[in-house]
Amino acid sequence: MNINGKHYRTIWLNPDGWSVEIIDQTKLPFAFETVTLESLEDAAQALSTMQVRGAPLIGATAAYGVALALRDDASDEALERTCATLAATRPTAINLRWALGEMEKAVRNQPREARVAAAYAKAAEICDADVETCRSIGEHGFGLIKAHADKKGGERVNILTHCNAGWLATVDWGTALAPIYRAYDEGIPLHVWVDETRPRNQGASLTAFELGAHGVPHTIIADNTGGHLMQKKLVDLCIVGTDRTTRTGDVANKIGTYLKALAARDNDVPFFVALPHSTIDWTITDGSTVPIEERDPREVTHVTGRLPDGSIATVDITPSGSPAANYAFDVTPLRFITGFITERGIAPGTRDGLVMLYPERAEAKT
Amino acid sequence: MNINGKHYRTIWLNPDGWSVEIIDQTKLPFAFETVTLESLEDAAQALSTMQVRGAPLIGATAAYGVALALRDDASDEALERTCATLAATRPTAINLRWALGEMEKAVRNQPREARVAAAYAKAAEICDADVETCRSIGEHGFGLIKAHADKKGGERVNILTHCNAGWLATVDWGTALAPIYRAYDEGIPLHVWVDETRPRNQGASLTAFELGAHGVPHTIIADNTGGHLMQKKLVDLCIVGTDRTTRTGDVANKIGTYLKALAARDNDVPFFVALPHSTIDWTITDGSTVPIEERDPREVTHVTGRLPDGSIATVDITPSGSPAANYAFDVTPLRFITGFITERGIAPGTRDGLVMLYPERAEAKT
Repeated sequence: MNINGKHYRTIWLNPDGWSVEIIDQTKLPFAFETVTLESLEDAAQALSTMQVRGAPLIGATAAYGVALALRDDASDEALERTCATLAATRPTAINLRWALGEMEKAVRNQPREARVAAAYAKAAEICDADVETCRSIGEHGFGLIKAHADKKGGERVNILTHCNAGWLATVDWGTALAPIYRAYDEGIPLHVWVDETRPRNQGASLTAFELGAHGVPHTIIADNTGGHLMQKKLVDLCIVGTDRTTRTGDVANKIGTYLKALAARDNDVPFFVALPHSTIDWTITDGSTVPIEERDPREVTHVTGRLPDGSIATVDITPSGSPAANYAFDVTPLRFITGFITERGIAPGTRDGLVMLYPERAEAKT
Repeated sequence: MNINGKHYRTIWLNPDGWSVEIIDQTKLPFAFETVTLESLEDAAQALSTMQVRGAPLIGATAAYGVALALRDDASDEALERTCATLAATRPTAINLRWALGEMEKAVRNQPREARVAAAYAKAAEICDADVETCRSIGEHGFGLIKAHADKKGGERVNILTHCNAGWLATVDWGTALAPIYRAYDEGIPLHVWVDETRPRNQGASLTAFELGAHGVPHTIIADNTGGHLMQKKLVDLCIVGTDRTTRTGDVANKIGTYLKALAARDNDVPFFVALPHSTIDWTITDGSTVPIEERDPREVTHVTGRLPDGSIATVDITPSGSPAANYAFDVTPLRFITGFITERGIAPGTRDGLVMLYPERAEAKT
């Protein structure tokens, strides 16, 4: 996608042919800065501090993290250590585990001297495939938005989204936002309600930034607001991303997603989840078994923003001595999901919906 | 309640016998400052800027606002103008309209020279009655918490609350928090999940401050978190306040209350609303007709807190150019309410639950 007219991906190989560049998402929306990753430690740090975040981009960054690590030590032991280190940075996101598995497969059977080149090639392939996957998600989701626009006879379609599942969460295009960009580019009148997404404000910072940079009409709202908007018929459609979805359709996503799904159901608003195949955990059938990351309570008690003089500051919004808790994800049970927007098309929100789209996965036990 | 061992109400008459002192709640939890109200304009300003907030305290402040206004002009026209000015400051809170009605009744039949004294007497009576009412709410709600504690055999009872319905929202004791203070004082083991309550953070600032000052164990959470906690059986009971409840039990309260009520229902968690009779709107039967206040979007885009050096600063957390919307309340339909904790006892969450407790209101059309 474009920033100030220049096309960017969220992660790319530098001209030196080995170091990797990322956009530092902790600085957005106040500053657009990139960071160079030169080692496994750099990659792990970028993941755990959320300089990169979003399920698909987490996978892509981990892939390059393996390549960087193998430059130092291409042994089997190092490969295992590397994968364990990277996997530990974010416990909920399944793409991380998926990408590490892909990297291992691509590298393990190579002689040591060929492993680095194989790793870089595979990481690049994962990135390119993600772009194509997200483009396809946009294509399939476009039809949904178009149908609402047709039904409304040219009145704008109001879409609510939570957190950031846009191009900043992937390599390009995004998952939940890909259909929105596609529909906007096709001239469909639309407007996006952007959940602020406390505690890290990925909606107010990243999603609003992305949509604004692309020119898509949007309004930032407190996370508390979506239910009221749905009661007042101001939301036609919800589209969110996911960090891990079980083969049976339970959806782990940013904390608060479940509350919006409940409101959508109570108000007959369709609730869609956009995801690439790499976000599906084919090994589990019960969403309540997905590990939920707990992060530093400081993300709840402290807020970063821009002072009137343009400088960036972090303020404490709580009384000293009051503890806080910071659960990063929740699980929305399948029964609240209208459907899944994937690169292969739209799956209904049924227990076998995803397996029907990915029949090659049917063999695993449901 | 006590702050640093000193007993306070949230509003009181100064020793001069006419000016009124309030706690400036926009400064909490960072500073404890009081403000002197000397005119109608001061009172209206305190209400609209939310130096005072919370349905019962809004009513008490409006009552003293009438007394202050009558000192300048005790005519019928001035009384009408005053009530209209004060009523316009907060459209959703019904206590405001109730208190103004009480003041008019107390004053209108008095000769002009007696009106000021009558107004001060009535305002003091409204404040004293609120304290007694909230004490009774605490008494009745105590039984609910005790029952959970007994069922859990001494394990602590986890209560979730939204916004601030504590003593800072009333003259003393609070509504939703009154049973919690009472239970804590009786030695019941309990812990409160405090919803941050964006966009104005009344939970993270006021509720956490109150509970901390009283020693009640609590944890601040992002508003997004409650659903996950309920799924994980970490919430035994929800208690919230209300700004206006219809005679048939639809509950207007701080934006986001509805989302918690949905999650409570989906997880079989009892959801109680604590309220004095003055918060019941006996004239309406459909919550969707309650006017919902829209406030300055700046309350969404800007956050105030404490810098590391202890000074207070306000930061902008959104990209420049991204608009925001700020709906202050939502309406939770009766079907999600387990019961109402009032000064007369606990009413079931049924259409005639409140009328059964207030039979003198039964004559009005339901």
